[in-house]
Amino acid sequence: MKQPLDEQALDQLFRSARTYPSWQDRPVSDEQLQALYELLKWGPTSMNCMPARFVFLRTAEAKARLEPALMAANLDKVRAAPVTVIVAHDDRFFEHLPTLWPHTAGAREMFADNAALAETTAFRNATLQGAYLIMAARALGLDVGPMSGFDNAKVDAEFFPDGGFRSNFLANLGYGDPTGLFPRGPRLDFAQAVTLL
Amino acid sequence: MKQPLDEQALDQLFRSARTYPSWQDRPVSDEQLQALYELLKWGPTSMNCMPARFVFLRTAEAKARLEPALMAANLDKVRAAPVTVIVAHDDRFFEHLPTLWPHTAGAREMFADNAALAETTAFRNATLQGAYLIMAARALGLDVGPMSGFDNAKVDAEFFPDGGFRSNFLANLGYGDPTGLFPRGPRLDFAQAVTLL
Repeated sequence: MKQPLDEQALDQLFRSARTYPSWQDRPVSDEQLQALYELLKWGPTSMNCMPARFVFLRTAEAKARLEPALMAANLDKVRAAPVTVIVAHDDRFFEHLPTLWPHTAGAREMFADNAALAETTAFRNATLQGAYLIMAARALGLDVGPMSGFDNAKVDAEFFPDGGFRSNFLANLGYGDPTGLFPRGPRLDFAQAVTLL
Repeated sequence: MKQPLDEQALDQLFRSARTYPSWQDRPVSDEQLQALYELLKWGPTSMNCMPARFVFLRTAEAKARLEPALMAANLDKVRAAPVTVIVAHDDRFFEHLPTLWPHTAGAREMFADNAALAETTAFRNATLQGAYLIMAARALGLDVGPMSGFDNAKVDAEFFPDGGFRSNFLANLGYGDPTGLFPRGPRLDFAQAVTLL
């Protein structure tokens, strides 16, 4: 029988976790990025379709390529973070379905022949995987600063010039500097967000 | 300094967690659903916009209303699960921004005046919140069976006849029956899904 995680773990994942705008000068290693992927990859997607692709920007040079696409308010956050990840999706994710989901004959064609279904499925499931990345990073003791204030088309033109991949959102990764935090925003309460039937 | 969670917690959240098709005959209480929301609500959304709305179907009568929208393969899963949740979003989520995100003057109008941006923002962020629900349920010792094989328009007509809310995906909640599991699907490896720059 599974039990709830302990209070400290629930705090680290949800209750005390924050979106950090400022970052300590402490690196994130490639081994940590690999461990992050090896954890988040287990998160569920529809028909195990795994459309997300992750581009980790680790150097000043790589992050400079992102700058023209950023809102001004996000420039300093990206420069200070040890790593910024582009969460994207592969438009042709369904080419992997014969391996990832061999149970359903014609799974690939279900999407290859229906561009609207493929796009919705890619966006929904890559977003889920982006959330798994956020939660996996927190589970591994990292802080995260997700951002959607940027020009997706500019990111795609710079990082995916051949097409095929499309950016969804960005996230800074590292060790947050708590002195940069604003007071936490309120949340909708249970009765505002939930209906019990 | 935050540390990684222990191995058992990482297993429970990611590595041994599975999408359950079969369910034990063991209830989930309203108190558990409230605890679930009180945890997932802390997950980050863009401008704290929190567009997700959750409809928890706890009774056979409530779940029967869902059945005409389900793929045949999902009928038994929903009937056996103690609770099925409809993850939806509020098209007019931005009406709450003056409370949820008071920092930016005109935040409400940014979305109220741009239907395409509002729709993309609602879909992306409600999906993130759906993933937080999955991870929060696992953190609380529950199993989850997310499903996107259903007719969204039928769900919306039945549960949101006045419009305003739109369904995104479904998830069964409860205590999974491991005898119902298929072998786990493979995952794309690091080199297939990740680029390091």
